[in-house]
Amino acid sequence: MSEAKKHVYSFEEGNKDMKQLLGGKGANLAEMTSLGITVPPGFTITTEVCDLYYKSGRTLTSEVKDQIAIKLNELENKMGKRLGDANDPLLVSVRSGAAASLPGMMDTILNLGLNDQSVLGLATKTGNPRFAWDSYRRLVQMYGDVVMEVEHADFEHILENVKDTKGAKFDTDLTTEDLMEIVRRYKAKILEVKGIPFPQDPLEQLSGSINAVFGSWNNYRAVRYRELNDIRGLIGTAVNIQTMVFGNLGEDSGTGVCFTRNPSTGEAKFYGEYLMNAQGEDVVAGIRTPKPVTALEEQMPEIYRELVDTCNRVEQHYKDMQDMEFTIQQGKLYILQARNGKRTAAAAVKIAVELVGEGLITKDEAILRVDPNQLNQLLHKQLDPVAKTQGEVIARGLPASPGAAVGEVVFTAAEAFEKAQSGLDVVLVRIETSPEDIDGMHSSKGILTARGGMTSHAAVVARGMGTCCVAGCADIIIDEKAKTLTIRDKGIVIKEGEFITLDGATGEVFNGRLGTMEPELSGDFGTLMGWADEVRKIGVRTNADTPHDAAVARKFGAEGIGLCRTEHMFFEGDRIKAVREMILSNDVEGRTKALAKLLPYQKSDFVGLFQAMDGYAVTIRLLDPPLHEFLPKEEKDIYDLAREMQVDVGTLRAKIEELHEFNPMLGHRGCRLAVTYPEIYDMQVTAIIEAAIEVAKSCPNCGRATEVKPEIMIPLVATTKEFSMLKERAVKIVEEKLAAANIKIAYKIGTMIEVPRAALVADKIVESGAEFFSFGTNDLTQMGAGLSRDDAGRFLKEYVSQGIFEYDPFEVLDQEGIGELIRIAIQKGRSVKADLKIGICGEHGGEPKTVEFCHREGFNYVSCSPFRVPIARLAAAHAAVKDKLKK
Amino acid sequence: MSEAKKHVYSFEEGNKDMKQLLGGKGANLAEMTSLGITVPPGFTITTEVCDLYYKSGRTLTSEVKDQIAIKLNELENKMGKRLGDANDPLLVSVRSGAAASLPGMMDTILNLGLNDQSVLGLATKTGNPRFAWDSYRRLVQMYGDVVMEVEHADFEHILENVKDTKGAKFDTDLTTEDLMEIVRRYKAKILEVKGIPFPQDPLEQLSGSINAVFGSWNNYRAVRYRELNDIRGLIGTAVNIQTMVFGNLGEDSGTGVCFTRNPSTGEAKFYGEYLMNAQGEDVVAGIRTPKPVTALEEQMPEIYRELVDTCNRVEQHYKDMQDMEFTIQQGKLYILQARNGKRTAAAAVKIAVELVGEGLITKDEAILRVDPNQLNQLLHKQLDPVAKTQGEVIARGLPASPGAAVGEVVFTAAEAFEKAQSGLDVVLVRIETSPEDIDGMHSSKGILTARGGMTSHAAVVARGMGTCCVAGCADIIIDEKAKTLTIRDKGIVIKEGEFITLDGATGEVFNGRLGTMEPELSGDFGTLMGWADEVRKIGVRTNADTPHDAAVARKFGAEGIGLCRTEHMFFEGDRIKAVREMILSNDVEGRTKALAKLLPYQKSDFVGLFQAMDGYAVTIRLLDPPLHEFLPKEEKDIYDLAREMQVDVGTLRAKIEELHEFNPMLGHRGCRLAVTYPEIYDMQVTAIIEAAIEVAKSCPNCGRATEVKPEIMIPLVATTKEFSMLKERAVKIVEEKLAAANIKIAYKIGTMIEVPRAALVADKIVESGAEFFSFGTNDLTQMGAGLSRDDAGRFLKEYVSQGIFEYDPFEVLDQEGIGELIRIAIQKGRSVKADLKIGICGEHGGEPKTVEFCHREGFNYVSCSPFRVPIARLAAAHAAVKDKLKK
Repeated sequence: MSEAKKHVYSFEEGNKDMKQLLGGKGANLAEMTSLGITVPPGFTITTEVCDLYYKSGRTLTSEVKDQIAIKLNELENKMGKRLGDANDPLLVSVRSGAAASLPGMMDTILNLGLNDQSVLGLATKTGNPRFAWDSYRRLVQMYGDVVMEVEHADFEHILENVKDTKGAKFDTDLTTEDLMEIVRRYKAKILEVKGIPFPQDPLEQLSGSINAVFGSWNNYRAVRYRELNDIRGLIGTAVNIQTMVFGNLGEDSGTGVCFTRNPSTGEAKFYGEYLMNAQGEDVVAGIRTPKPVTALEEQMPEIYRELVDTCNRVEQHYKDMQDMEFTIQQGKLYILQARNGKRTAAAAVKIAVELVGEGLITKDEAILRVDPNQLNQLLHKQLDPVAKTQGEVIARGLPASPGAAVGEVVFTAAEAFEKAQSGLDVVLVRIETSPEDIDGMHSSKGILTARGGMTSHAAVVARGMGTCCVAGCADIIIDEKAKTLTIRDKGIVIKEGEFITLDGATGEVFNGRLGTMEPELSGDFGTLMGWADEVRKIGVRTNADTPHDAAVARKFGAEGIGLCRTEHMFFEGDRIKAVREMILSNDVEGRTKALAKLLPYQKSDFVGLFQAMDGYAVTIRLLDPPLHEFLPKEEKDIYDLAREMQVDVGTLRAKIEELHEFNPMLGHRGCRLAVTYPEIYDMQVTAIIEAAIEVAKSCPNCGRATEVKPEIMIPLVATTKEFSMLKERAVKIVEEKLAAANIKIAYKIGTMIEVPRAALVADKIVESGAEFFSFGTNDLTQMGAGLSRDDAGRFLKEYVSQGIFEYDPFEVLDQEGIGELIRIAIQKGRSVKADLKIGICGEHGGEPKTVEFCHREGFNYVSCSPFRVPIARLAAAHAAVKDKLKK
Repeated sequence: MSEAKKHVYSFEEGNKDMKQLLGGKGANLAEMTSLGITVPPGFTITTEVCDLYYKSGRTLTSEVKDQIAIKLNELENKMGKRLGDANDPLLVSVRSGAAASLPGMMDTILNLGLNDQSVLGLATKTGNPRFAWDSYRRLVQMYGDVVMEVEHADFEHILENVKDTKGAKFDTDLTTEDLMEIVRRYKAKILEVKGIPFPQDPLEQLSGSINAVFGSWNNYRAVRYRELNDIRGLIGTAVNIQTMVFGNLGEDSGTGVCFTRNPSTGEAKFYGEYLMNAQGEDVVAGIRTPKPVTALEEQMPEIYRELVDTCNRVEQHYKDMQDMEFTIQQGKLYILQARNGKRTAAAAVKIAVELVGEGLITKDEAILRVDPNQLNQLLHKQLDPVAKTQGEVIARGLPASPGAAVGEVVFTAAEAFEKAQSGLDVVLVRIETSPEDIDGMHSSKGILTARGGMTSHAAVVARGMGTCCVAGCADIIIDEKAKTLTIRDKGIVIKEGEFITLDGATGEVFNGRLGTMEPELSGDFGTLMGWADEVRKIGVRTNADTPHDAAVARKFGAEGIGLCRTEHMFFEGDRIKAVREMILSNDVEGRTKALAKLLPYQKSDFVGLFQAMDGYAVTIRLLDPPLHEFLPKEEKDIYDLAREMQVDVGTLRAKIEELHEFNPMLGHRGCRLAVTYPEIYDMQVTAIIEAAIEVAKSCPNCGRATEVKPEIMIPLVATTKEFSMLKERAVKIVEEKLAAANIKIAYKIGTMIEVPRAALVADKIVESGAEFFSFGTNDLTQMGAGLSRDDAGRFLKEYVSQGIFEYDPFEVLDQEGIGELIRIAIQKGRSVKADLKIGICGEHGGEPKTVEFCHREGFNYVSCSPFRVPIARLAAAHAAVKDKLKK
């Protein structure tokens, strides 16, 4: 017989580094045991057994069973008690514990080992028959529910019935006899429902419980929790078999939970709560109000001191804030669990920074302690947590842009703008938004849409502006004419002017006004971000189209603009008129005349951006969307426009029809517009360089000159010649302007890499003069994977849940597929120009996993919406620290 | 001073292999000179000078001028005459001549060297003053028009005016004095219009003419001709300066054109025509009817024998049919030009085959002699060439599918179907076609659409069916209600039931009925194709959706089906009802029930295909288009369908709205449908394998069993898991059916590579079980280059004319960009499975350049529409022969 694999570890045999094998709980119990901390003895069945359990058709192999029997025997010897012993039974708990925390999602069995005989022994031994029978009652109920799958309600009915009969208000009012009666009726119920009795054999109880815990690894709740919390790559849960200790053995017993620091604020103060004469579940049940753990100092000063000392020791050992469970059994302190405590973003930052101050961890470690995604919480207005629990959730949509918004409902962008002008807070409610709504969106505190996904227009724009947005809320029905918002299946109708509240971080929509809290960027935040900036290797820029956005982004640490989308500028105020005039012109002269009207606006836009960026590079993307986006779609709007432009409605309609595209994503847009109508880019390039010259020249009044670094970006390039033609034209204009102004400005002309073909001929594009690449990963994903962002919502969810894509490729860059295109483009591009500047400006640029990818692939910078800049900075630092660790 | 570059070559210095440098004409004149054939002496200015001419701002460098002067001097010495000599002037012609033939597109000057003095000398020397003055008149007119850019009409007016005054009917009625008068008035006109006189200095005439010829290289006609005829990569035209000889010096003089074989039929008979006492332009002008060249045998037997001998010598020398120009000057034969003759497709085939028979060329050379694209002419019904010249062209569209069609105009597919059923010939006229029109398209002799490009639905389907189609005809306005077809700007209105004729090879639309000719696949065609099949390395399959198409393709030599599009099968007859029922079902049960109705239809489709292919592989693509394509779009049709399906109109409209996609190309289609609704592919796979079993089993009556090789192709795969999931499902169904039938069938399951991402993870897709790849180059181009086939028509033309794309990437595969994706996929795919079967099934599969690409990249086969199968076979042979030549 070959050496059997070790499947079961006593707490003495493990340590904290064995989480993958023993689960978090098992590894920590083992670690504390080896630290000499008083942990009730026990052993752990490994996560590998869980995997084996499923592979063997949900059974335990005989090898595993044998190993469990051996460890159980050791435990019995150690404790001097036997499981099921009629006089002095050993009682154990059976708990789940995976490498990652799945709180409350899996099953637990307590008091295992009791039966009709041993309950009597326990009663005698403890001198507390009521305790013994209560413990037995709990075991039968728990086992019946969890292992034997009798309805939980069946037990509750019996319990309530007996309480009613006996006039008992609380469980604690029940006598020993009452409990005996309950146990009797529980067992009868089990027999009635399942046709088999509650097992009296403790070993049968044990194997049933172990099977149930392994089985709970794949119950719906646990699977869903792992999905929602992005917990992947685990093979299963471990099972911990641990000697029971009891906090309910009298007034010298108790149980509690404590944190070595405050998990909400991060404050370095011992924190927690406890109940005397109680079991853990009583604390949770909330029947009695627990006391703050500090009160224990008075009640049991020695125990308190021991607890504090132990907790500190464990924190020092783990070098992180600990979340611990303890039980005091007849004056003796046991630690039942210790783990790194969950915490709010604010607490995470504070704790990480203070642990560095205390010399416990390094700055690098501090950086890794804060999840970049978590920072989102810190950067936006939030709902008051108390107010939130009291609010009425009337609908749920996608958490499209974080933050909280309270305002009057309005149904059009124009109303939003008007009401906001008069000082009101409004929430813009639309079926979906379009570029024409941009002013109204800017004016709103929040945006709610009925349709569209995480990357819909509303979502993208809102994130860019840092405005709270709940998108794709299928629960609402919008009647724009009646100006009402109806909640599906609920009969709630909200009229224009009535208040709603949005939580953009959860996608919840509340009726009425809820309280909010402003974000606080504490000093610790600044400290941590400073460390992140020291260590990170890649730059972080922002996607910003307005000086306001640019200023916000600077505040968040952006080092330049990686993407300024000029089309947004085309919608404001009177500009759209000139744009439409341009589109409706039939010749170059007409277009040039209309574009000339836009030039001063564009120039002033760029002046503002250059000033806001104060010497940092500003990458400006020339016009990208198809022209039909600038024309109205509704019959009435077409009619109005025709009158305004003094053209025939038929002509206008024909023009709109002519511009219609079956697949606008793959249509006449980006640099293709400029191949057909070069005058458009000519105007934009002129505006950029004139603005740059104006800003770079010292002001005649104040004498101040601002350095400018314009980077002109040509979108949707697919071929070498598109780029070279358009670059040549642009350079001519720029050089003429610079020569005329007698000034030197370091400018660059580069391209978006967003068409797969461009990635494949990247070397040739660089040869033809591209000075930088910026990966437009939204379009690169759309074209590379053949997925329309606007349409794929219908099936992408299923694609992710079936594991076809690991993540929604519009949220997290598809590193395998689209990443390969990027790698090809970089390799080819840099083979021609080794120092080719490479950035990313798609929505992915602020997503931590993608930022790490960019770091690994040698990007110079990532660019993201202003509110994601700190996230990207921290993610970049994570990547750099992880790199160091590998070396 | 460094060695000057040689820019001018006398005919003695060149040879036939110097076409790039001397142009075709120059090289051939040199070659003939060195063969000892009587060619009027002269010299050639190289094509490099043309390039230099443009680079020097349209001037000749002094170096070039010097070299011309030297060669002119040599020529004068050789001829014993001087240019412009007052007594015995040398006259020369100045002609263009590029490496490729641009017939009549560039400029020519004849009789150069005449002026007010030398015309008198020529008169005296020839004793023919009228000839001398007529020659001078021609020079002044030609030079005035071509070099000095005086309106051609100005000269014509003067000529007509003098003819009227003198009562002369023909030019030949003019006397010497009349001609002198005309010359006087011509010169006065030139002076009046241009302010400078007609140059009397022959050297000025010469340099003016050389400049004009170089300038004509880039005139509109020449540029357009090169574009249309796909003539690329030339640096310019050469200029030939050649001693004039005259066929109009009396009845012992003459001029003619001859072919060594018949250029229409290829028959090996001397062919051509001539005129005595005439110049070349007289033959062209058609004033006198030329005689067949064979008549010369009687008229001038010695000259005839010399001509035939010379022609045969030249043909033997060039080993190809020659097109030659000759002049007889006072009893002496001169050869002015010889070149490989243009010929019809039929002639090309016959000549190539017969040259092999004559031992002049090898089979491989014969293969290269026929342009695969030319074969198109041979495979379709054609317009009678005579009838065609007499027909009235009322509109022009894109030559979307070759052939000729004559029929009554109908405006709906339903009418087309009905009328065709009653035996009428119809031409279906639609704004654009949609899959619903398929029956009507099948029933029509030809299809005419107002919108859509070369790869629009109408074009693709028509080519597939071998039906004549003119697409995107912007000249027509269709009024479906009034049932009229109006020709824009012409006031022609054609009503339903009136006749039109289409030429699908040219895109012309004719009014009324024109005569047609059936294709003749002669024995020579079969012989040549046999040689092609012997030498080619890659297989040729067909894209066919019906047994009829499959049978046609077999006739054309297809070796299997590379693409059967199952969606076409969903529209026929009652099937669409079941399809719609499936789409409108809200659950698996409903869908499965509806699909069950389709199963027998699908199965019988496949039975037909397997039988038609008789042992060849049949690749069946599972359902590809988005479901909304199967639902009606028009309000009335929606209403009808709702009634038919007994569903609420609102519900139906909501379903249609729900299925609407912004970018259907990137939407919910292909294997994505099967991820969401696996029952669809389940039905199709069941139908395929049940059909295969039925065909493979021996017939209970005749005992015959047909071998079947089904290849199931999963479309739009982008990720490994899509493929592995769907393959697993398919294999399960197939294996169960095979086991139940107790039969073994060799089937394969593979995938289209049409999403760029799939190409990038091709290795993993093969690892997950793909047994073949078929490149869907239409979609691969759409996604890879970000071009919507339906929309790009608007700017692609400009893209090609500006050289951004060398060819329309939907017609000729973009080998640089999309080709790179293909190379990556093949390299990755075969790295896992060295014998991975690789094919192409996009529209490109029948395009010769793409076929050569596929050959080079190691494809196993190409697949194309039935009528392109011979083209692909020949193109594949070209590739193989070229390969051999490289070795």
